[in-house]
Amino acid sequence: MRVLGIDPGLTRCGIGVVDGAVGAPLTMVAAGAVRTLADEELPARLLGIEKGIEQWLDDYQPDAVAVERVFAQHNVRTVMGTAQASAIAVVCAARRGLPVSLHTPSEVKAAITGSGRADKAQVGTMVARILRLDSPPRPADAADAVALAICYLWRGSAQERIARARQKFARTIELARQRHGL
Amino acid sequence: MRVLGIDPGLTRCGIGVVDGAVGAPLTMVAAGAVRTLADEELPARLLGIEKGIEQWLDDYQPDAVAVERVFAQHNVRTVMGTAQASAIAVVCAARRGLPVSLHTPSEVKAAITGSGRADKAQVGTMVARILRLDSPPRPADAADAVALAICYLWRGSAQERIARARQKFARTIELARQRHGL
Repeated sequence: MRVLGIDPGLTRCGIGVVDGAVGAPLTMVAAGAVRTLADEELPARLLGIEKGIEQWLDDYQPDAVAVERVFAQHNVRTVMGTAQASAIAVVCAARRGLPVSLHTPSEVKAAITGSGRADKAQVGTMVARILRLDSPPRPADAADAVALAICYLWRGSAQERIARARQKFARTIELARQRHGL
Repeated sequence: MRVLGIDPGLTRCGIGVVDGAVGAPLTMVAAGAVRTLADEELPARLLGIEKGIEQWLDDYQPDAVAVERVFAQHNVRTVMGTAQASAIAVVCAARRGLPVSLHTPSEVKAAITGSGRADKAQVGTMVARILRLDSPPRPADAADAVALAICYLWRGSAQERIARARQKFARTIELARQRHGL
């Protein structure tokens, strides 16, 4: 399964593509960013983000997309642009019928480092370790996007594992019932 | 010239279409809203907004689009959805190569009522008067969208008038210079 992670931003959207399969180590396929110029008008910037993300989706054909869920607790000016960029990211994926999952920064940090309060450097270090890279993906937004994709794959497989465990448990109970005529 | 105004919102995007020509009264062509359900997931809602706006653009083929500029001074939770809906509106127009103009609520109020602090009812009343309607367009977001379109048309024609006046003045000066050999 291939997941494309997007860390949205008006100036720079981090992008990371990660392949994962149950029981196999995760592999980073690509990481980078979609950039727009601060002196462009908003319509041109949003259009640039759309074109850039479409290109990544065309090039890497992911099975799912993970986008950072934007919260308003940060810098209010920045957050408006982030919300707008995230809307473009979400709609690009949804238009193709791809499942889109939104993850808060603390969910991602907790999934990758074990702590929802980890800093960017710690997330980068763990991303590199998980993917067996010599150093964290660059730029920093790309590392965050890769972390989002990992978060999606791990949560997905954790959910699958729980579902399988539940089925196994139900089967055991059923067999026990039959055996004891309950 | 036909302008489509959009008052963005995640639950309801007000839409208003107004025709204007220099020296002729403005005419309302259509007003309404694009709605999404609050219990839908964000990707489905943003996709619904995109489809709805595309339909309005297809049906009315405007020459320009006016969108409310979102500010973060309001309710922070609401403003995130508004920012995301506005991004979709802007990109739908930009993708078609239509000029997109962003207006703050106080710019619109000042253009329509003469006061940047006018309330919704006052804006509705003036929109109805300007367009010679019996009552303001419904729902309220549609009236705001119509006001945005009027604001665009009036600012546009004001700018044209200033440009024409400047040209005329420059020509007068030039003629005077020639006449007096300056």
